Amino acid sequence: MAKRSESANRPAGTKKAKKSVGMEEAKEVPIKGKDVDTMAKLQRLAAAVSEVAKKRRDPYLDVPSRSLSNSQFNKKKRLIEMGAKTNRRELFNLNQARSYMQTILVGSGCSRLIRQGKSTSIRGMYYMLKKTIEGTKENTFNEQAESDAVIEDLEVITGAMREELHLYAEPRGALAGPVVFIDGENELDAGRMGAAGYPIPSIVEPDRVRIKRCDAKFILHVEKGTVWQRFNEDKFWQKHKCIVSHGAGQPSRGVRRMLHRLHNEFNLPVFCLLDNDPWGYYIYSVIKQGSINLAFESMRMAIPDAKFLGLRSIDYERCQLKEDVTIKLDDKDKKRAKQIASYPWFADKKPWQGEIKQMLANDFKLEVEALISRDISYVTEKYVPERLRDNDWLD
Amino acid sequence: MAKRSESANRPAGTKKAKKSVGMEEAKEVPIKGKDVDTMAKLQRLAAAVSEVAKKRRDPYLDVPSRSLSNSQFNKKKRLIEMGAKTNRRELFNLNQARSYMQTILVGSGCSRLIRQGKSTSIRGMYYMLKKTIEGTKENTFNEQAESDAVIEDLEVITGAMREELHLYAEPRGALAGPVVFIDGENELDAGRMGAAGYPIPSIVEPDRVRIKRCDAKFILHVEKGTVWQRFNEDKFWQKHKCIVSHGAGQPSRGVRRMLHRLHNEFNLPVFCLLDNDPWGYYIYSVIKQGSINLAFESMRMAIPDAKFLGLRSIDYERCQLKEDVTIKLDDKDKKRAKQIASYPWFADKKPWQGEIKQMLANDFKLEVEALISRDISYVTEKYVPERLRDNDWLD
Repeated sequence: MAKRSESANRPAGTKKAKKSVGMEEAKEVPIKGKDVDTMAKLQRLAAAVSEVAKKRRDPYLDVPSRSLSNSQFNKKKRLIEMGAKTNRRELFNLNQARSYMQTILVGSGCSRLIRQGKSTSIRGMYYMLKKTIEGTKENTFNEQAESDAVIEDLEVITGAMREELHLYAEPRGALAGPVVFIDGENELDAGRMGAAGYPIPSIVEPDRVRIKRCDAKFILHVEKGTVWQRFNEDKFWQKHKCIVSHGAGQPSRGVRRMLHRLHNEFNLPVFCLLDNDPWGYYIYSVIKQGSINLAFESMRMAIPDAKFLGLRSIDYERCQLKEDVTIKLDDKDKKRAKQIASYPWFADKKPWQGEIKQMLANDFKLEVEALISRDISYVTEKYVPERLRDNDWLD
Repeated sequence: MAKRSESANRPAGTKKAKKSVGMEEAKEVPIKGKDVDTMAKLQRLAAAVSEVAKKRRDPYLDVPSRSLSNSQFNKKKRLIEMGAKTNRRELFNLNQARSYMQTILVGSGCSRLIRQGKSTSIRGMYYMLKKTIEGTKENTFNEQAESDAVIEDLEVITGAMREELHLYAEPRGALAGPVVFIDGENELDAGRMGAAGYPIPSIVEPDRVRIKRCDAKFILHVEKGTVWQRFNEDKFWQKHKCIVSHGAGQPSRGVRRMLHRLHNEFNLPVFCLLDNDPWGYYIYSVIKQGSINLAFESMRMAIPDAKFLGLRSIDYERCQLKEDVTIKLDDKDKKRAKQIASYPWFADKKPWQGEIKQMLANDFKLEVEALISRDISYVTEKYVPERLRDNDWLD
C-alpha cells in the first residue's frame, strides 16, 4: 500500500507531484480493511487495461449488461439476478471511446477517494471528474446522468458496491429498537435516540457500521416517517421487542442494506407495513426480491423472506373503514397493479393474485394513515398486533 | 385539568362515553407543561364560540389574514411580520359555514391529540377529521389541502404553533457538533452521532427537546445532506468548535426552529453555505427574515443576524473554477433572481444588489459541489475557513 502524506500547504513548486489539473495536493491515508479488497478490484481493472495497451492490442472493457433482458428471477434463490450478458466497450471505436474514457475516469476517481480515505456523493463524483479535455471542446461528462450510469457500470465490472467505492447518497430513513451500532468511535443505541430515531446512514457496510448487539425479535418496516413517528411515540418497539424502521418512501440502498444485514446477521424476520396501493406493493417487491435496475445488488440487499403485513385490500371491510378514507384508483394505478401482478415472483402466488385483484375490484387504494379514522393508535395497538398474533400476512 | 384514564379495553356499553363516531375509546393523559397553555388557547376559542351561541347571536371567528398583502417587513426587527387584517368567518353564511365548521373541527382534533398525549402528521389530522356529515353527502374535508390551510388558520387564531398543537411533519435535516440534547428520557450528544448526525426532529419545542449543554462557537448551516457529509467526514465541527447543520434543501420548520433556539439560547452566530443560485438566496432569505407564507411564525423562527457565507457570484474567479462546473441560468432563474433582489430586506443593501447583479452578469449558477473540482475537501479546508478568518460574508 503506497502512502504519501504531504501537507496541502507546501509551497507550490517545491516538489514534483503528479497532480490532476486544478486539483489541490491531497493527503493520502493507509488503505485498511474492506478498502484493500475494493482497491484490488479497481487495480485489476486498471492492470487489465494497461496490459492490453502494453501488448499494443486495442484496449476494451467487458461491461455486464444492466438491461431488463439481462435480469431474471432465480426461483430457487427467490431473487432477481443479473444474467451473463456483457457488452464490450472499446477505446478505438468511435461510438464507445467516450464511455470507455468515462469508465476509466470514474475508476480512477474512486481510487482517489479510497486513497484519501474520503467519500463523496454521486453528484460530487460528477463535479470531481467533469473537465474540458485539453485541446478540445469536449467535456468528460456533460451531465450527471452520464457519470451516474458509469458508476453503476463500474459496480458490475468490479463487483464492488457503490458504497464500497466510497460513494454516498443523501441519507434517508431511520429506525428505533433494541439494537446498538458502532459507527466509527461512537456507540449508538437505537433504543435511546428520541423523537427522530437512529438515522440510517447512506453507507452501512460492516467496516463503517458495526452491529454490536441486537435484542430485537423482528423488524417492522413502515413506508413513511410520519407513520413511523406514531410507532415511536407509542413505544411499539419497546412493547414488542422489535425494530421499527422506515425508508421515507421507497427505501434507499442504505436502508435496504441495513434491513438485509439485520435480517441475516441476527435472523430477524422482516414485516412490511405499506400503503394498499401499487406503490406499496412495489416497495415490498424491491425489499423482497431486489429491483430490476439493480439486479446485481440483489444478493446483498434482497430479503426473499420478507412478509407483507398490510395494508391489505380486505382491510376496508376487516377494519370497518368508511368510504371517506378511500382514494379512487386512476388509470396509472390500474396499469401498474396489473404489471406488478405479472411479476414472476407474484405470478404464481394465489394470495398475491387475490390481493391485487381485490384492490382492482375495490377500485380504491388505502393509505396506512386511513387507519387513523378508527383511532390515532389503532395501527399500533390493534392492526399490527392482531396481524402478528394471527400470523396473518402475505409472503 | 380534566383527567380521564379509562382502559381502551373496557367492554362496550359499560359506561356512557362521549365518543366520536367510528372512533375507538382512547385513554387520556394529564396535561402538563407547555400543553397547558396550548389547551387554554384552544379552550378560549371554543368558549368564544359557545358563549356567542348561548347569547343566541351568530357565531363567528376572526381569522388573521395570511395573505401577502397582510405581511410586511419590519425594518426595526428585521423580519417579516403579519399585519392586523382579519377575515370574519361566520357560521350562518353560506360561503363561510364550511370553513367555519372545518376550523372548529381542527381545533377539536388538536385538543383530542393533547388530551391523549399524542401527535400526528398533518396528513394524519386530515384522516382523523375526514367524515361524511350524517344525513348529507357532504364531506368535512375533500382533500388534505383544505385541512392544511385550516391548520395554519388555527395557528394564527390561537397563536399556538403547529408544533404546539401536536402536529408533526416528516423529520428532515441533521446536525453535528458539541451540543447535547435531552429528548424525553434520552440524552443525545450531537458530537457522538456518527455518519448521519443528530437527526433534527419535526417538533423541537423546549418541552420536547431540551438543550442541556452547548460548547459550540457558531453554527454553519449548509444546504444539502451530501455537502454536510463532507463536513462531518472531515470533522469540521470538531476542528472549528461549531455546529454544522443541514436542512436537506429548503429547511423544514423543525430545522429553522432548532437554529433559532441555538442562536438565541446560546448566542451562536449562524453562517449559511448555500448554492450560488436564486434558490440558495431564497433559503437564506427564509432563514434570516422568515417566509411570507408563514409570516406569523417569523418571531419564533427567523434569525435576522444570519450571515450568507457563500457561494458568492465572485467565487468563480476567486476560487479559480473552470467553466465546466458552471450551470447556465434559465429564464426562470433570472426572473426569480430579480424578484429576490427586490425583496425589501435586500433592496436597500448594496452588497446584495451587487451579488445578485453579478450572478445575472455571470449568466450561470454554481452549486457548492462545484468546489470539489478544486479538491474533495476544498470547501472544508479552504473555502469556509478563509471566509470565516476574513469576516467575509454578506449580511
